[in-house]
Amino acid sequence: MYKYDYLEKITNEIFIRMGHSAENAQKATKVFLAAELRGISSHGMMRIKDYYELWKANRINTSPDIKIVHETPSTAVVDGDRAMGMLPSIRSMEIAIEKAKNAGTGWVSTRNSNHFGIAGFYAIMALEHDMIGITMTNANPLVAPTLSVSPLLGTNPIAVAIPAKKYPPFVADFATTPIARGKLAVAEKQGKKVSLGYVQDKNGNPSDAPAILKQGGSMLTLGGDYEHGSHKGYCMSAVVDIFSAVLSGANFGPFVPPSVAYLPVLDEKVGEGTGHFFGAIRIDAFQPADEFKEKMDKWIETFKNAKPSKGNNRVYIPGEIEREKEIELMKKGIELIPAVKNELKQICNELGVDFE
Amino acid sequence: MYKYDYLEKITNEIFIRMGHSAENAQKATKVFLAAELRGISSHGMMRIKDYYELWKANRINTSPDIKIVHETPSTAVVDGDRAMGMLPSIRSMEIAIEKAKNAGTGWVSTRNSNHFGIAGFYAIMALEHDMIGITMTNANPLVAPTLSVSPLLGTNPIAVAIPAKKYPPFVADFATTPIARGKLAVAEKQGKKVSLGYVQDKNGNPSDAPAILKQGGSMLTLGGDYEHGSHKGYCMSAVVDIFSAVLSGANFGPFVPPSVAYLPVLDEKVGEGTGHFFGAIRIDAFQPADEFKEKMDKWIETFKNAKPSKGNNRVYIPGEIEREKEIELMKKGIELIPAVKNELKQICNELGVDFE
Repeated sequence: MYKYDYLEKITNEIFIRMGHSAENAQKATKVFLAAELRGISSHGMMRIKDYYELWKANRINTSPDIKIVHETPSTAVVDGDRAMGMLPSIRSMEIAIEKAKNAGTGWVSTRNSNHFGIAGFYAIMALEHDMIGITMTNANPLVAPTLSVSPLLGTNPIAVAIPAKKYPPFVADFATTPIARGKLAVAEKQGKKVSLGYVQDKNGNPSDAPAILKQGGSMLTLGGDYEHGSHKGYCMSAVVDIFSAVLSGANFGPFVPPSVAYLPVLDEKVGEGTGHFFGAIRIDAFQPADEFKEKMDKWIETFKNAKPSKGNNRVYIPGEIEREKEIELMKKGIELIPAVKNELKQICNELGVDFE
Repeated sequence: MYKYDYLEKITNEIFIRMGHSAENAQKATKVFLAAELRGISSHGMMRIKDYYELWKANRINTSPDIKIVHETPSTAVVDGDRAMGMLPSIRSMEIAIEKAKNAGTGWVSTRNSNHFGIAGFYAIMALEHDMIGITMTNANPLVAPTLSVSPLLGTNPIAVAIPAKKYPPFVADFATTPIARGKLAVAEKQGKKVSLGYVQDKNGNPSDAPAILKQGGSMLTLGGDYEHGSHKGYCMSAVVDIFSAVLSGANFGPFVPPSVAYLPVLDEKVGEGTGHFFGAIRIDAFQPADEFKEKMDKWIETFKNAKPSKGNNRVYIPGEIEREKEIELMKKGIELIPAVKNELKQICNELGVDFE
């Protein structure tokens, strides 16, 4: 069990030794630790090794020149200069917020980036400005469109953060697939089967094998099969891909570059790096922020008071589970699984960082 | 079987006799007919009776003063003055497009409206301006949030239309539930069961009874159950509700007014009428439109060339099925089911419109 502050210090140190400025190291660190605290450890300390290996393979740039390459009053395209995804993402969301201050809304499509961690982190940045925040990203192709067996899409998440007054904010942060990729890896390690409706084999037959992706299988979009609306999950995932990558000039669909160094750089590219999309909506571009937030309180109360189905005792507002986890782990500390602890020890050893 | 032009003339005539201006009658007519042509007859001629009955009950305004009540360079709130939903929706999308010309993007949240027909119609309006169009709306509460049995949400659809160059546009238009409400009505009329995963009984048990909503049951969100990501469908549906109704000052969640006259006006209201949300994104606010559209061609080709799963011979681009239907029905005519034909005959009889 580790204290937040200790893991923050170590992570920061690792990124500095990889060549990042103190400011950039600290920014990226915040995103990794936020994932751990919110209980999304698949995007937390576990991912440091991926970035470390990409850095050793010279596939990320630790001295990036992140800049706006095109803009209008409410939009911008940002080039991430092959940085760790967290850095252009924080900058892009800052730009979206600035644009929204003047134009009412701000929308940034970002190219030449890499895996950005949890989508929710950036959407949440808008809240303190009395704005709604929106984040999307494309990701490594593992997911097949409806009626297909070709993995052309990522788990392409969407996050939306909306402020309230007396209640904590509404924070939705979800993949456009029934489950996150990480859950398959966990089941595989535990030697367990998974529910039907997550993955299919190479011919499109239903499968409960978590390792089926290694045998030509693919993940399904939200909805599972056509009969249950998987084409709607496909639509959402496609929109995320197009907003993140076609609008910005990043790689889309199957051309998204691998976020791990053990997979080779792809032969064909159709743009630069991975793509993201960020939005900031100033509440008072629609109505006085205070009135809106009071209405959100009423919205939240209405949904909190919904009758739970048999066997359940609570109906959740999006973001509640993660917020409760955050409070719990900030107090009691963060547990790392032995494999992650060992990876970190090795990295720290190679970089000359003390880690116990 | 009816020719498009004939049904257009009749529908137009009905709306004029209800007191609409010639211009407004024609606008609303276009939306009803577009639904029929695209094969979404649940939102086509079948809905005329609903509006006719609302009009007789003095629950819609056929001489509306639709206006902007608040705006910034990239946003507006529109008040629909209790009109048929099509009228404020067309006006709102026009405003979004105007805003996008100057600010790069335009976003309109609309209140005091009614059922607007098919979401895709308004998103498609952006295409001829080399813009991406986005539409959302809330709707009558039939859908329970995850782990709940309270019907607090509508089928809350999202539509996104994106232009391409040599290929027809990408047009996604989907409810945030596994199926549309209309499919339950059809199964009920045919005396058929439905698949599990669409609806639940009043305790939250899985159900295959299409009429379960009349016995305290509710529809499920996209994903079906928690294990298969229904909380993601809940998140999407909630975002649609908040953008459409909390931002505009319309009624949200369970307070959305009924879109049929046989259900009474609700006792409690938290805003004005039904709410919608519209967006227009100028492509060249991000990159030259021609380059973008060539990339969309590549995106579309990549997905068209995906390998179909066993038993299927084609992978679809969102919007293809509806477009093919449109071409087919424009040529061969539109079939109305006897019940709808009879309803129309009665309405026409009452209004003094000739209809055979």
